[in-house]
Amino acid sequence: MSKTSLSEISRPIKDELDRFNQLYKESLKSKVALVDLVTKYILKQKGKKIRPLLVLLSAKVAGNVNDRSYRGAILVELLHSATLVHDDVVDNAEKRRGFPSINAIWKNKVAVLMGDYLLARGLMISVNNDDYDFLKVITNTVKRMSEGELLQTSKTRKLDIDEETYFKIISDKTASLLSTCCEIGALSAGVSKEKSDAMKLFGENLGMAFQIIDDVLDYVGSTSLIGKPLGGDIKERKITLPLLYSLNLSSKEETAKIKKLLKNADKKGEIKEVIDFVKQKGGIEYSLEVASQFSQKAKKTLEIFDDSQSKIALEALIDFVIKRKN
Amino acid sequence: MSKTSLSEISRPIKDELDRFNQLYKESLKSKVALVDLVTKYILKQKGKKIRPLLVLLSAKVAGNVNDRSYRGAILVELLHSATLVHDDVVDNAEKRRGFPSINAIWKNKVAVLMGDYLLARGLMISVNNDDYDFLKVITNTVKRMSEGELLQTSKTRKLDIDEETYFKIISDKTASLLSTCCEIGALSAGVSKEKSDAMKLFGENLGMAFQIIDDVLDYVGSTSLIGKPLGGDIKERKITLPLLYSLNLSSKEETAKIKKLLKNADKKGEIKEVIDFVKQKGGIEYSLEVASQFSQKAKKTLEIFDDSQSKIALEALIDFVIKRKN
Repeated sequence: MSKTSLSEISRPIKDELDRFNQLYKESLKSKVALVDLVTKYILKQKGKKIRPLLVLLSAKVAGNVNDRSYRGAILVELLHSATLVHDDVVDNAEKRRGFPSINAIWKNKVAVLMGDYLLARGLMISVNNDDYDFLKVITNTVKRMSEGELLQTSKTRKLDIDEETYFKIISDKTASLLSTCCEIGALSAGVSKEKSDAMKLFGENLGMAFQIIDDVLDYVGSTSLIGKPLGGDIKERKITLPLLYSLNLSSKEETAKIKKLLKNADKKGEIKEVIDFVKQKGGIEYSLEVASQFSQKAKKTLEIFDDSQSKIALEALIDFVIKRKN
Repeated sequence: MSKTSLSEISRPIKDELDRFNQLYKESLKSKVALVDLVTKYILKQKGKKIRPLLVLLSAKVAGNVNDRSYRGAILVELLHSATLVHDDVVDNAEKRRGFPSINAIWKNKVAVLMGDYLLARGLMISVNNDDYDFLKVITNTVKRMSEGELLQTSKTRKLDIDEETYFKIISDKTASLLSTCCEIGALSAGVSKEKSDAMKLFGENLGMAFQIIDDVLDYVGSTSLIGKPLGGDIKERKITLPLLYSLNLSSKEETAKIKKLLKNADKKGEIKEVIDFVKQKGGIEYSLEVASQFSQKAKKTLEIFDDSQSKIALEALIDFVIKRKN
């Protein structure tokens, strides 16, 4: 059976996702009119909701979806929304999911404050319901996500990074939250530590594969209304796995030439030259192979769970992550 | 006995403040070099540390300063630092305490992420030590602070605000954190709910007085290296108590004229005209009177606590807030 779309993958927990959407909407209500206006705008954009999906599927695979699972799903989605809103400030992004970004409409001030608000709102739901196990996991995740981004920023400025550092960065900035989604799902189902650790590891490996594919798509993806433009990372001088691998195979002269191109990479010609270099060195195939290894590891960690429609859905999600085109 | 400087006020807990400074420094260490660099820069700036001072004094007045009191003091100072770093992004501020701001040196990206990091770091300390009572208080505070700023932003854009809304804004954006400092201090000392509520109320009233004086200083303060330039609020079209009171006393024509001035208030002439209008209408005296009423209320809430050097220090802190010139 091949499931290719997120809505197919979500089928075993469709009712639960509907309930989540309802609760999520309610959680965003505020007495401050401007806050209400901005959150309604965020809700209209309908993201992929991969993170709540992960929480609910993990809960169901590990045992059952209950009130705590929904609270966990809301927590991670609020945190994710907060980071997106802050990311757009950080990147001066004009668009998000095809809509003008919050900062583009309401300026940086509102965007920074809304990010803080969304994060606080998420944490409050956990605090008010005594979900302290969630809080332990999520606060560490917030710290790792910001540290990961900061590490990437400093490495970007110096154009100096090795594979170990790259893996640390993507683990902190991306895999940590996906891992947290799966762990929180399992915790909500009240399973053994062995099982919640397995779910956490599943999410970590899934997240690594997810980010590597994201980085590959910067070289081979197609620009679309919702996708990022090709070569965005190159423009920002981010050295990700495809380029990192290619540079490691290169002579000193080649490396110097590419780094020079990166420093001037706001022109289309320079970006194309870097993309061609990576394709020619085999950086794409190598990265896809590494992503595939992480996805295999992810599948393996699911073995201790009983077979179910939800487990099949989690496995299909791995394939979806590997095969997605944007 | 008149205590006029913060260092005199701090004398009864000088040893505790030294210990706090040591622990605070340690709490900021990170394995990510850029994070370490920025936090060292923040530490060099040596803020007034009014918030940790409040936590420690409240703990001492309510009972004793212990490990939990220090953790509470670190939590509030980390949160406060996070909001300052984000504020400077929000306001495009070039300077903070006489030093170039984080965003001025490392750009918005690093500043937004560092704010998130500092907040997460603070929450983690509470989470890892099971200080759940602190978390209940602080997450609500983070929400109120962002909501208060957002409410002010929307009112600023519409130039439409009444006194009730003004008090709500300053309670949320400023008094909430000072109130939280005092409550956390009392909670750390393990006192009765009656006493922790009294401390909370003390902080709330102190915070209201603090912000009103801040708003008055925008009209009568002197520009200095560390102070804000005169008329900054007017330039940003923020209608605070002195102007609000003055507008309420004005004819329709006068009000229309002032609002027109506010819309063009990036010129010095316009700012001076608004300041003169407020002075002439008695907006300064009225605001000082209101601030004084809040300070009286603050003093009254301290009555249930036994007399001590620390209690005298808290009372002196109220006077310091009312009489400060920057």
